[in-house]
Amino acid sequence: MPNLMLETVTTHRDLLSSIQQQLVEVASVFTEQLKSDQETVNSLCQHIERYRGKMLRPSLVLVSGLAVHGEPFRSSLITQQHVQAAAVLELIHMATLVHDDVLDEASIRRRGATVNSLHGNESAVMLGDYLISNAFHLCSKIGDPAVNLLLGSVTNRICEGELMQLAHRDDLALEESVYTEIISRKTAALVGACCRLGTQLSGASEALCDAMDRFGTAIGVAFQIQDDLLDLAGDPETVGKTLGRDLAKGKATLPVILHLAEATGAQRDEALQVLRERNGEALCARLDGCGAMERAHERAVALVERAKCELQVLPASPARDMLASLADGAVNRRS
Amino acid sequence: MPNLMLETVTTHRDLLSSIQQQLVEVASVFTEQLKSDQETVNSLCQHIERYRGKMLRPSLVLVSGLAVHGEPFRSSLITQQHVQAAAVLELIHMATLVHDDVLDEASIRRRGATVNSLHGNESAVMLGDYLISNAFHLCSKIGDPAVNLLLGSVTNRICEGELMQLAHRDDLALEESVYTEIISRKTAALVGACCRLGTQLSGASEALCDAMDRFGTAIGVAFQIQDDLLDLAGDPETVGKTLGRDLAKGKATLPVILHLAEATGAQRDEALQVLRERNGEALCARLDGCGAMERAHERAVALVERAKCELQVLPASPARDMLASLADGAVNRRS
Repeated sequence: MPNLMLETVTTHRDLLSSIQQQLVEVASVFTEQLKSDQETVNSLCQHIERYRGKMLRPSLVLVSGLAVHGEPFRSSLITQQHVQAAAVLELIHMATLVHDDVLDEASIRRRGATVNSLHGNESAVMLGDYLISNAFHLCSKIGDPAVNLLLGSVTNRICEGELMQLAHRDDLALEESVYTEIISRKTAALVGACCRLGTQLSGASEALCDAMDRFGTAIGVAFQIQDDLLDLAGDPETVGKTLGRDLAKGKATLPVILHLAEATGAQRDEALQVLRERNGEALCARLDGCGAMERAHERAVALVERAKCELQVLPASPARDMLASLADGAVNRRS
Repeated sequence: MPNLMLETVTTHRDLLSSIQQQLVEVASVFTEQLKSDQETVNSLCQHIERYRGKMLRPSLVLVSGLAVHGEPFRSSLITQQHVQAAAVLELIHMATLVHDDVLDEASIRRRGATVNSLHGNESAVMLGDYLISNAFHLCSKIGDPAVNLLLGSVTNRICEGELMQLAHRDDLALEESVYTEIISRKTAALVGACCRLGTQLSGASEALCDAMDRFGTAIGVAFQIQDDLLDLAGDPETVGKTLGRDLAKGKATLPVILHLAEATGAQRDEALQVLRERNGEALCARLDGCGAMERAHERAVALVERAKCELQVLPASPARDMLASLADGAVNRRS
């Protein structure tokens, strides 16, 4: 038994260090893809490098790819196609951050100034376009038309989600089902695609790819609920970006929806008043006081638990464990 | 001889009516691709339908595709791949219009309100993204990885051109070579790609595809010079869009560059003053008076003449003639 334990720990360590190494490769493919013969373009792209955070999406691609095979763990199971796909999805993620910051008029991201605040909205719009364009260009280099088709349909869904959200700006009667549909598209579709692509590029069955897409989509929704909670009540220093944007931009998020759904007449009027006044402090106090914050967080945690059930289609392995712990990380975070 | 004449005329008419019919198909593929299950998205896309103009880019794809074969003309030479590629390039063109209008703060296009002026910059940014995303999605349906790769590298160039232009905002010392490089990327790369793709999808040799790309790129540069002239001195009613945007946004265009290059000290100071004051009327009068407008137009015409020489690699045919006349149209237009 002690030997077995040791074996597991070693394998897990090997896995972690291998993923770390491959994430470095992903970052290098990402940087290489963006290189232009124009210095103007390169210096804007250097700014993007600073946006890079936990690399959740590339990690999901790589670990999903490995998890298909179960044990024994071999780093060679991750191909160049996985690395390229991981970089493609990170490029799309960065593009959404750059355009989101324009939409949200946000000035801080990852503790630094946003592109729009430093170089103006025009450059931010164009830099976002350049990232999208490079994502598709890199995707075409993978040489698998199915991957291109998948990426196109995912980015369509992301844009639909963003457009739905804009259409519901200042809609204080937003239903929970519509909120969920919006975040399923704008955030979760990409996370689902990470898990699907990693699995697909490892030659898994359609059923397994579908299960992994459901896993990713569920944790994507949970991730966004947590993001919305941090936007409301997070510590700006810890989160490292401009907060309070949802209230400022008239986006109703889950705790607000839950509170309004159960508030009595007078409470509801008070809450609506606080929302219209864009009074963040008073809003947080209300949502905290009535337990709506906690209930929203519980929804996110429940989603992650359900998501982890999908992982049962995979053979037991350190990679599968790592997927479960990445899922937990989506909701157990303060930044 | 009269019979031969008649034959040519008939063939030319057949060609025109066939292209017209296929452009209707392109429009229908375009519309079908944008259909969403979300009404919000569909109603924004209906707005885009109103932007559709002369369909220059789709026409270039189709006619280039036909011109490879010479005579006899058979409409069956245009495949579904040509029609899809034509719709892809029109989607990219529309996306650039939508994002350009945000950058230029333009309120009128094709005699109607722009998306940004009607629905705000945020919706315009996201709608542009939705168009780009759908262009790549439709492109992936063509089922030819080479087409995807080409499209990605072209859209990279378009974004680079736009970013260069932003970096040279208010640069009154802009050199002609840099101006040409900017418009070669932001406008001409797409026109070159139209001609290359039409030819490539007809199975032409690499050399022929290269010649057609040069043809399209040259007329794209000429087209943009003419566009810049119309922005300066066009009739707003005839052009149908917000004019004077280049001056307002500090973009030095060809007549300004030509004038500043040859102006003597005092003339130069006066011209710079007029530019800094954003005085459109005084600027037009100066550029007209010194012949800079005419010289810029002559450059565009000369580019078109050189472009037409590239067509000699094609067999003589009504399709080849039509390409020449589309090239002429790029500079002989008032809208």
